[in-house]
Amino acid sequence: MENFFQILKTDDCSRARLGKIATSRGQAETPAFMPVGTQGTVKALIPEEVEETGASIILCNTYHLYLRPGADLIFKAGGLHRFMNWKKMILTDSGGFQINSLAHLSKLTEEGVIFRSHIDGSLHMLTPEKSMEVQEKLGSDIMMPLDICLPNPSPYKKYEQAFKQTTRWALRSKVFHEGKPGVLFGIVQGGIYHDLRRKSLEEIEELDFPGIAIGGLSVGEEKDLMYEILDGLLPLAPKDKPRYLMGVGAPSSIVKCVSLGVDLFDCVLPTRLGRNGTAYCQTGKINIDNARFREDFSPLDPNCDCYVCQNYTRAYLRHLFVSKEMLAGRLLSYHNLYFLGKLMSRIRQAIKEDRFIEFQKEFEETYQERSINS
Amino acid sequence: MENFFQILKTDDCSRARLGKIATSRGQAETPAFMPVGTQGTVKALIPEEVEETGASIILCNTYHLYLRPGADLIFKAGGLHRFMNWKKMILTDSGGFQINSLAHLSKLTEEGVIFRSHIDGSLHMLTPEKSMEVQEKLGSDIMMPLDICLPNPSPYKKYEQAFKQTTRWALRSKVFHEGKPGVLFGIVQGGIYHDLRRKSLEEIEELDFPGIAIGGLSVGEEKDLMYEILDGLLPLAPKDKPRYLMGVGAPSSIVKCVSLGVDLFDCVLPTRLGRNGTAYCQTGKINIDNARFREDFSPLDPNCDCYVCQNYTRAYLRHLFVSKEMLAGRLLSYHNLYFLGKLMSRIRQAIKEDRFIEFQKEFEETYQERSINS
Repeated sequence: MENFFQILKTDDCSRARLGKIATSRGQAETPAFMPVGTQGTVKALIPEEVEETGASIILCNTYHLYLRPGADLIFKAGGLHRFMNWKKMILTDSGGFQINSLAHLSKLTEEGVIFRSHIDGSLHMLTPEKSMEVQEKLGSDIMMPLDICLPNPSPYKKYEQAFKQTTRWALRSKVFHEGKPGVLFGIVQGGIYHDLRRKSLEEIEELDFPGIAIGGLSVGEEKDLMYEILDGLLPLAPKDKPRYLMGVGAPSSIVKCVSLGVDLFDCVLPTRLGRNGTAYCQTGKINIDNARFREDFSPLDPNCDCYVCQNYTRAYLRHLFVSKEMLAGRLLSYHNLYFLGKLMSRIRQAIKEDRFIEFQKEFEETYQERSINS
Repeated sequence: MENFFQILKTDDCSRARLGKIATSRGQAETPAFMPVGTQGTVKALIPEEVEETGASIILCNTYHLYLRPGADLIFKAGGLHRFMNWKKMILTDSGGFQINSLAHLSKLTEEGVIFRSHIDGSLHMLTPEKSMEVQEKLGSDIMMPLDICLPNPSPYKKYEQAFKQTTRWALRSKVFHEGKPGVLFGIVQGGIYHDLRRKSLEEIEELDFPGIAIGGLSVGEEKDLMYEILDGLLPLAPKDKPRYLMGVGAPSSIVKCVSLGVDLFDCVLPTRLGRNGTAYCQTGKINIDNARFREDFSPLDPNCDCYVCQNYTRAYLRHLFVSKEMLAGRLLSYHNLYFLGKLMSRIRQAIKEDRFIEFQKEFEETYQERSINS
């Protein structure tokens, strides 16, 4: 595990870091964005395409795969990598977040979470041990322990109970996973309170996980509050471990959070937006169904060198989208992931060349986190 | 036009022919199967993938593209090839068939067909001249004149009126298209009556088109009757022109119809079946959602060397399909087109090597045109 994470360079003028994650399945330079392959597929794309967009790690959802097709089936298939034909790294979440957002009738106890499947209503119990067992059967490279993530804002007392239970579950997860393949992170909770975040980090640090995940952000609070929490928290985090900000991936958030010291991101946005006809462009997002693109024979993003921008016009992509053709979602998903892959690569290059602050300034002047449709 | 079609070899023991179509956009060996790209996209696939499956010609639907995005827009885009990024040949139908099957309130006159769009109810009139104009704006390589296709069975008298009007429209189309780029076929109608088919062929032959399309088959009649009609008709067709059997593409029909002298096929089946979870295999079709594939870690078709069969298991494809993942339809469509592409290539090879009859016998013993799910 000594070599799981290495810091290659630290920015002089911000907290941005250039790092490298290495596992038996290869390496990933950080800061990195991880596309989401919820059900064992990054929607509409084949693994070769996901790799082309610059991804070295994808995130898969334990909740979904546990329910369907089931961990035992994937284990028999030779693990998730082989099942879905993705050869690079896989990070799995614990399943806790989806139980909260998707499952029915979930009930929290000290032992674990009882819930009903959103697919067939069947009753299940997920414990920290069970989550680890599932992730181990999947053959995940980077695993998350079961945690409790509250919406923001929630009462102080509830955050306190939640992060303490998160720590107790982290310990149980660590004990269960001891000696088995795959890296287990610890998750910091504590909602929107600096003191709780600090205490959560201290408790998690006592268990000495090889990586720190930050949960419970981007779940209802304003972005500025998220940045403030990270600004207070990350200077206290150990420098030699990767920090993974769970579920965050809007381009402007990525750049800002990198400046605060985050190394890993994941988000369903690029593929979900793509399927809904929205594309990232250099200056902001465009909605391809807008009438003004009807006879626009220029590429989606004139500054992009991806397959989609090299071969198709906005007019064609709009036609596909309004005609409800599957190819629209496929091509826009590809472009959006490529856009983020390129953004991460530019971020890393800027850190390497000691010009991250300039890069950030230029990016913030150029890119607007809203639909521009121009 | 002299070199548009060439017969390279005729089978000694059947009417199967090996031929070559050549246009400014490249060549295609026949017998050939043409995937259907209804709305300017072979559903779920990019042109590079369609080409990988062995296709040199695709079919696009004039009715759909005329209504959306419109022929003028595609013309401004530089033509359909450029619009959709397909560099090989495109065959377009006339739009007539879709008006019958999709449009509302269609009304037939000598002048043309009046109909309401199935998209927005708007009123349109398609004449032979208008259909040619649209196909010319698309930049089609092989065009079809507006014709009248009746369902089988229909009254004798109606077939007679329909093929005669088809001939009159063919003449108007020819006159309109004279001197412009793109090859125009003539269409033989006549339903299920040998004498009408023969008369239709004679009339069309008088206009001397460079290719013969056979319409009005596979529209309600038994397959054996279709074969019987072709068996009676094709010996009368000129040997030096390609024969295109419109809308037929089931593997067993292709093999049988090649033996009767057909050179070109098109059909939406391989992609539609793929999206619906059905895959062609060496011995017949399988429905991937069948429970018996749940833990089947073998490829879709063990004898197939396509990308899908080389990289994914039935268990994974079933998981994608039951999870309603877009990738399922994409991968199955690819495999099915590849299966047909390979079938055509094996057919051509068999004709080349003077063993088409043996090939046909072996194919008919091996492949069953039904779901086998084994």
